[in-house]
Amino acid sequence: MELLEEKIRKEGQVKGEGILKVDSFLNHQLDVALFEEMGKAFAKRFAGEGVNKILTIESSGIAIATSTARYFDYCPVVFGKKYVSLNLDQEIYSSDVYSYTKQQAYKIMVSKKYLDKDDRILIIDDFLANGKAVEALIDMVNQAGATLVGVGIAIEKGFQDGGALLREQGIALESLAIVDAMSEEEGVIFRAQSEKK
Amino acid sequence: MELLEEKIRKEGQVKGEGILKVDSFLNHQLDVALFEEMGKAFAKRFAGEGVNKILTIESSGIAIATSTARYFDYCPVVFGKKYVSLNLDQEIYSSDVYSYTKQQAYKIMVSKKYLDKDDRILIIDDFLANGKAVEALIDMVNQAGATLVGVGIAIEKGFQDGGALLREQGIALESLAIVDAMSEEEGVIFRAQSEKK
Repeated sequence: MELLEEKIRKEGQVKGEGILKVDSFLNHQLDVALFEEMGKAFAKRFAGEGVNKILTIESSGIAIATSTARYFDYCPVVFGKKYVSLNLDQEIYSSDVYSYTKQQAYKIMVSKKYLDKDDRILIIDDFLANGKAVEALIDMVNQAGATLVGVGIAIEKGFQDGGALLREQGIALESLAIVDAMSEEEGVIFRAQSEKK
Repeated sequence: MELLEEKIRKEGQVKGEGILKVDSFLNHQLDVALFEEMGKAFAKRFAGEGVNKILTIESSGIAIATSTARYFDYCPVVFGKKYVSLNLDQEIYSSDVYSYTKQQAYKIMVSKKYLDKDDRILIIDDFLANGKAVEALIDMVNQAGATLVGVGIAIEKGFQDGGALLREQGIALESLAIVDAMSEEEGVIFRAQSEKK
């Protein structure tokens, strides 16, 4: 997606060990107009697939998922929670994630009330790197017996293996920008649109 | 806001000690169409006030803030983060919050890059009870020397003192639904529109 790649080129900062900082528009300050364009792109890719629910994970996925829902007839968005809140229903699906960014393991959970076997789910998240968060979301979709329509990602780190692992499983993955290489000196190199599949 | 009160009456569940569960549409599964109506209501209340940034706190505030931004000319949304991420810039404003729901204290932070003395800030959050989270957000607005235009809340628990404390300080507070009393037996009693100010 040209608009997103432009934004990454202009505002993204590569920091040493594989870290791409995009907190000026994607995961701390949020560019909602951009998110709606991203939502339109996901809607175009997954049109006619009967998506009736969007599943994401707190926190950075929530804004993108919210902006995307309007292009899927305002279907409900459900977000996986990273810890047990006292308010949260105890009847839950749960899965484990290891975050390399934060260097810690955590659990995510979704109330059983909000994932149903008849659901046709689109998973949305901001980043795909090693794919651990998306795998945990898929795990919960499977626990519910729901159908995974596909996965929509803003920025895939193509030099990590999460994207390849999902594609090998035949999962419909739409990454709006794929970073194949990056360095502090040379910035970011994107995968060409023609090579994305 | 009639639509929100209706939704609370229909789907909200009162659970013992002052807990109102609205996770079917507000803070686990998200009703984005409703959030856009809420955004319109906030825009109507704060029209002409020069709001150029929306500040919220992860996670439940993010979706409402995102839906609201489109009615403020797609101004940026910034969300306070609840813990130190390794990716987060170290130049931060920080404030402390005590969560009665989770019975623990935590820190929130916003990068100094995303709060500016020229900013005119609208704070958005899903719930207002004792007001600790909103107070921490206001604290960071003040640290930045920015101007607080007002505070927009989905559901205020009118039987707790957060709302009264903000109004006493002369802060423009718009709570779309104010719950003055609730019980498992009798459900929820809302403050009348005419008594809201």
